Amino acid sequence: MAVVSNASVRISAFSWVPEFARGFVRDLRVRWALEEAGIDYSERLLDGRLDRPVDYVSEQPFGQVPSYVDKGVVLFESGAIVLHIGETCDALLPNEPAERARAIAWVFAALNSVEPWTAQLGALDAFHAGEAWTKERRPQLEKMAARRLDNLEAHLGDRPWLENRFTAGDLTMSAVLRDSDFASARPRLAAYRARCEGRPAFKRALAAQMAAFEPAKASSQ
Amino acid sequence: MAVVSNASVRISAFSWVPEFARGFVRDLRVRWALEEAGIDYSERLLDGRLDRPVDYVSEQPFGQVPSYVDKGVVLFESGAIVLHIGETCDALLPNEPAERARAIAWVFAALNSVEPWTAQLGALDAFHAGEAWTKERRPQLEKMAARRLDNLEAHLGDRPWLENRFTAGDLTMSAVLRDSDFASARPRLAAYRARCEGRPAFKRALAAQMAAFEPAKASSQ
Repeated sequence: MAVVSNASVRISAFSWVPEFARGFVRDLRVRWALEEAGIDYSERLLDGRLDRPVDYVSEQPFGQVPSYVDKGVVLFESGAIVLHIGETCDALLPNEPAERARAIAWVFAALNSVEPWTAQLGALDAFHAGEAWTKERRPQLEKMAARRLDNLEAHLGDRPWLENRFTAGDLTMSAVLRDSDFASARPRLAAYRARCEGRPAFKRALAAQMAAFEPAKASSQ
Repeated sequence: MAVVSNASVRISAFSWVPEFARGFVRDLRVRWALEEAGIDYSERLLDGRLDRPVDYVSEQPFGQVPSYVDKGVVLFESGAIVLHIGETCDALLPNEPAERARAIAWVFAALNSVEPWTAQLGALDAFHAGEAWTKERRPQLEKMAARRLDNLEAHLGDRPWLENRFTAGDLTMSAVLRDSDFASARPRLAAYRARCEGRPAFKRALAAQMAAFEPAKASSQ
């Protein structure tokens, strides 16, 4: 476990979220990147049931999790934090400029071309179960999400990663797929996701997020 | 005008989209970044009424616009392309590492924390006018979008830019606001957007996108 109290890097995460969200909060993506890079970090744990502490807005203008603090750098947005960690970690972002740019393109594709559709679809069940409007809306969202996932599968073909090796693009794309039952129901994408989640760094990251929900961890914010 | 036929950089854009989308297609963001950086470029124009050319998938796995080609680099996702252009352009991404990381955080915030809500709201009118489900859904989306825009306004306060100077974060955030009547109805955000769009580079970019819709431009794909 790379969560240590005196680390230079500190991220925010939750000490409590509803059961269904455990193992899926976005600090998972950042923990995973830190594990790939071999960087120790500490946590600022927030209780998801409470209002955010007043000072938290200076770390995260939208009150979301995670934030990232390292000496003079205060960051938010998991995509940006993953890229920042990747700056000094070839395992996440290749040094070769063209390969690096492609990896970054896949980070954006995951967050801006796939997740907007899979997340809307997932929200129907997670936050809007039983609401009348979802009945008419669901098939529209399924069609749009399926189109993007078809494109993603066509690109993947038989290769193990989005490009010629694992990058931050795979980290982010597989995290987006993880959040979507609709996407994970596709065998090819499920296999891709499992390949990504088979990495030891992912397993450590997931264990660290889950450990934060243990009652003893509920700390002052 | 910086659209020249023998430029090293080539982007894709549309020669035809419906009237309401003109001036709003995402190649605008990339054209703007290229203008800020003083980089000439050529265009591959696609007709929005037709299926994408078969080979286009190798430039853009999701068939969207824009793609970006420069010698060995083939990129997609406007966010990634803006960051790529910013790599060598201090006007978009400051050289100082902490400032650079903040600028990148705002690019992601625009695309992943603000746009998912403003775009869903905009889609109700643009693509789903009159559909029954939108009646129940609209107030939910307005509430979520308003919350994010409240946070954005609170962060902006009285300053002209998201950080201490214009960056790729402002380019992307103002482009997201531009696409949203709901956001642009707020005086403070409208003023911020107008400040960003007052930049000569934006004006050249918008003129170039609009010029591509002139009938004479409808070219082979």
